[in-house]
Amino acid sequence: MKLKVGVIGAGTVGGGVIHLLLNHHGYIKNQTGVELELKHIVEIKSDLLKPYDLSNVTTSSDIETLINDPEIDVVCELIGGIEPAKTFIIKALQAGKHVVTANKMLLAKYGDELCKIAKETKKELRYEASVAGVIPIIKTLKEVLSTTHIESICGIVNGTCNYILSRMTYEGLDFDTVLKEAQANGYAETPPDLDIEGYDTAHKCQILASLCFGMPVPLDKIYVEGITEITHSDVSYANEMGYVIKLLAIVRKVEGEIEARVHPTLVPQNHLLASVRNEFNAVYVESETAGPTLYYGKGAGRFPTATAVLSDLLSLAYRKESPPLPPFNHYHDLNIRDIGLLQNRYYLRFTTKDYPGVLGRICTILGKHQVSISSCHQKETLSYHQALPVHVIIMTHESLESSVQSALTEIDKLDCIVEPTHLIRVLQ
Amino acid sequence: MKLKVGVIGAGTVGGGVIHLLLNHHGYIKNQTGVELELKHIVEIKSDLLKPYDLSNVTTSSDIETLINDPEIDVVCELIGGIEPAKTFIIKALQAGKHVVTANKMLLAKYGDELCKIAKETKKELRYEASVAGVIPIIKTLKEVLSTTHIESICGIVNGTCNYILSRMTYEGLDFDTVLKEAQANGYAETPPDLDIEGYDTAHKCQILASLCFGMPVPLDKIYVEGITEITHSDVSYANEMGYVIKLLAIVRKVEGEIEARVHPTLVPQNHLLASVRNEFNAVYVESETAGPTLYYGKGAGRFPTATAVLSDLLSLAYRKESPPLPPFNHYHDLNIRDIGLLQNRYYLRFTTKDYPGVLGRICTILGKHQVSISSCHQKETLSYHQALPVHVIIMTHESLESSVQSALTEIDKLDCIVEPTHLIRVLQ
Repeated sequence: MKLKVGVIGAGTVGGGVIHLLLNHHGYIKNQTGVELELKHIVEIKSDLLKPYDLSNVTTSSDIETLINDPEIDVVCELIGGIEPAKTFIIKALQAGKHVVTANKMLLAKYGDELCKIAKETKKELRYEASVAGVIPIIKTLKEVLSTTHIESICGIVNGTCNYILSRMTYEGLDFDTVLKEAQANGYAETPPDLDIEGYDTAHKCQILASLCFGMPVPLDKIYVEGITEITHSDVSYANEMGYVIKLLAIVRKVEGEIEARVHPTLVPQNHLLASVRNEFNAVYVESETAGPTLYYGKGAGRFPTATAVLSDLLSLAYRKESPPLPPFNHYHDLNIRDIGLLQNRYYLRFTTKDYPGVLGRICTILGKHQVSISSCHQKETLSYHQALPVHVIIMTHESLESSVQSALTEIDKLDCIVEPTHLIRVLQ
Repeated sequence: MKLKVGVIGAGTVGGGVIHLLLNHHGYIKNQTGVELELKHIVEIKSDLLKPYDLSNVTTSSDIETLINDPEIDVVCELIGGIEPAKTFIIKALQAGKHVVTANKMLLAKYGDELCKIAKETKKELRYEASVAGVIPIIKTLKEVLSTTHIESICGIVNGTCNYILSRMTYEGLDFDTVLKEAQANGYAETPPDLDIEGYDTAHKCQILASLCFGMPVPLDKIYVEGITEITHSDVSYANEMGYVIKLLAIVRKVEGEIEARVHPTLVPQNHLLASVRNEFNAVYVESETAGPTLYYGKGAGRFPTATAVLSDLLSLAYRKESPPLPPFNHYHDLNIRDIGLLQNRYYLRFTTKDYPGVLGRICTILGKHQVSISSCHQKETLSYHQALPVHVIIMTHESLESSVQSALTEIDKLDCIVEPTHLIRVLQ
C-alpha cells in the first residue's frame, strides 16, 4: 500500500509531518506495510525548508503546482486560519485528492460546507489533528464508539488554558503572572485571546458535538466562557472544597436535545480529568454501552500533532481501494439547548462589604429564585473592618441556570456587593 | 457498506455482540454508513439464544453450517479457550472469512501460527477485544502510534486484580477478604488463578509486545508474578511513602532488546495510572515523537467488550474493498531480556525478629551486593519483645535485579529473618 503525499505549510505542524515522512519512512513501512511517500511541499517561506533533505521532493510556492500534480493522492493542509486554507482544501478536493487538515477553526466555521464538497467529489476530508493533538478522539468516535449512543463528552482540549490553570493551582500563582510566563516560553500565543477566551476550545467542542450527534452544530449556538475571570482565590477556595478548576468543552444529550458549552468547571479532585495537568489534553466520554472512557495525551506541539496527521494518512492508505468515508454523517437536526435551561450545581463567589445582615440578604434572594444552598463559607478576617470586602462562597444544589442568573442580577444590585458575583459551574 | 456477520458463542461477550447487532443496527447505519448484519449464530446451549428475536438469523449448533454459509463475510469467535476456538478460527480463515476474536489466551499462545494462516488465506484476523476491553489500544498501536517508536507500555489490563488491589488500598481490607467478595459478586472467577497469578495479564502483555515491537514474543519469556503475595501491610507502607500498588504489564525497549514483564508495581500516587481504580483498565504508552498517552475504560464486561468486537467489524466494513491488513507485521527478532538484567528501584519488606544488629546485617549484605539504599523505615512497636516479628521497609536506589535477588537469598538465610523477604518493583 502506497500513498503519495503533498503538504501545504512547513511551519510547526507541517515541519513535523515533513520530518516524520522523511525520517520514519522505513519504520512506518515495517510496522504497517504502508509507504507514505512525501512528494510535494508548498511553502512561501523557503527558509522553513532548509532543515530537510528534499532531493526527492518537489517544492513550490504556489498551490496550483500541487493541485495539478497528478501523482498526489492526498494533500495535508497545515497552514491554519480561514483563508487561503479553505480555498486550498476545496481546490484539492475538486482536483480529486483526499485532504487531511489540522484546522479546527476552519472546520468549526465551515465544516459543513467542506463536508458537502468532500461528499460530492467522493474524496475524504480527515481531521484527526484538529482536536486534542495526538489523542485519537476522532478515530475513536468514528470507528469505536459510533456503535453506541454517546451520552456526554467532557474535554480538556486547550493546552494553554490547562497549563495556566495548573500553574495557578499547584504553584499558587495568579492568572496574569502565569499568562506572561506561558507567552514567554511558547505555551501561549500573543495575543492569547483565542485560547484564554475559550474560542479555540469552542471550535473543538463544535467538531466533537457534530461528530457524535450526527449534525452540524452551529458554532454560535455554543455557550463560551474563557478563563480570564478565574482568580487565585477561586482556585484556592475550590481546592479547599475538594475541586480543581478546568476549562472544559462539554457536550451532552439531554431530553433529546444537545448541550454544547465551554466554560471553567469545578472538577472533583478524584475525577480522572482533575489529574490532567499542564499542557496535556484529555477527553472523557460516557456512552450507553461502553461506559466511561478517557483518552489522554499532548494536545499540541510539532510531533504530537504531526503524529495525528500521519494517522489520517495511514487510514487513507489502508482504505485506498475502498469507497470514501464521509467526514461525518448528518442524519439528525436536534435543538441546541440554551444555557439558561442547564440544571447544574454552581460555585458562587460573592464579594461583599462586611456589614451585618449581608449573608441573610444574599440567601433570601437565592431562596426566592428557588436556588437551594448546599454549603456556605465566609472566611473569618483578622480585623473586622466594614470597608474591607470579604468573600462569601456558596455552593448550590442542582438548580436551573436561568434562576441562578436572575438571582445574581438581583444580588449584584445590593449596595453591599462590591463587584459582580463570580459563577463557576460544577462538573455533574 | 455492508458486512454479513456470523457469531460463534452467545455467552457474556457473544450475547453482547448479538444484542448490539440486533438493537443498534439502525443507529450504526446512521452514524457510520455501515450495515452490520447478523446472519448466523453458532451456540450449543440453545437456552442462551432465548432472549433475542432471531427471526432473520440462522442458528445452528455446529460450526460447519456457519463455515459453509457462503454469505458470511466475517466470523466472530467468542467462545474463548484454546480448543475448539483455534480450530474454528483456522477453518473460518480457510473458508475465506475474516475473523474477529476476543481470545487473548489463544492469541498469546498461538497468535503467530494464526497470523501466518491469516496471511496465507489473505483474510484478516482482528483482536481489539482481546486486550483491555473497550479501550482501542490495538487500533491505536496499529493505526496511530505505528508511525513513531514505542518506548514503553505500562498497562493495567486485568480488572479483577485492579479491583482487588483498589479495595485493599481504599478500604483497608486484606487480600483473601476482597477475593472472596469479588468472586461472590462476579468480579473474579472461580478458580481465580488466571487473573490473580498474573497469567491473564501476561497474555495481554504478549499481544501488546508483539504488536509494538514487530515480532512474536514467546509467552514463556515473559516474567510473570501475580498479586497473591501482596499483603495489607504492603499496601499500607506503600501508601505512606506516596505509592499505590498496581499489577502492571510492562513492555519496554532497552538497549535494542525487549523487556516484557508482569508484576505488582509501586506506582507514584500522582501518576495517572494510580488514579485507575476498581475494575477499570488503562494503558499508558510512551513514544518517541508523540510523548506519553493514556487510554482508559472498562476492560471486561458484556457491552464494553462487545463494543470492541464491533469496532473490528466496522473497520472490516470500512476496508471491504481494500487488501487485507496483517494482524501484525513481523520484521524484527530482538532478544527478550532476562528479568535479572532489570535496572530498577525496589521496595523490600523484611520480616525480622527484633534483635539488636538486625538492620546492620541486612544493610551490610545489601551493600556487599552493590544495592544502595534510598530510604529505610522500621516501625516502632509498642512493646519491645524479641519474639514478635517486625517489618523493616527498605527502598533501594536503581539497582540490578540479579544483585538484589542475590542479596535477598543471602539475607533470607539469616536466623533473624522470619519469613521470605517481599520484593516489589517501583515504576520507573
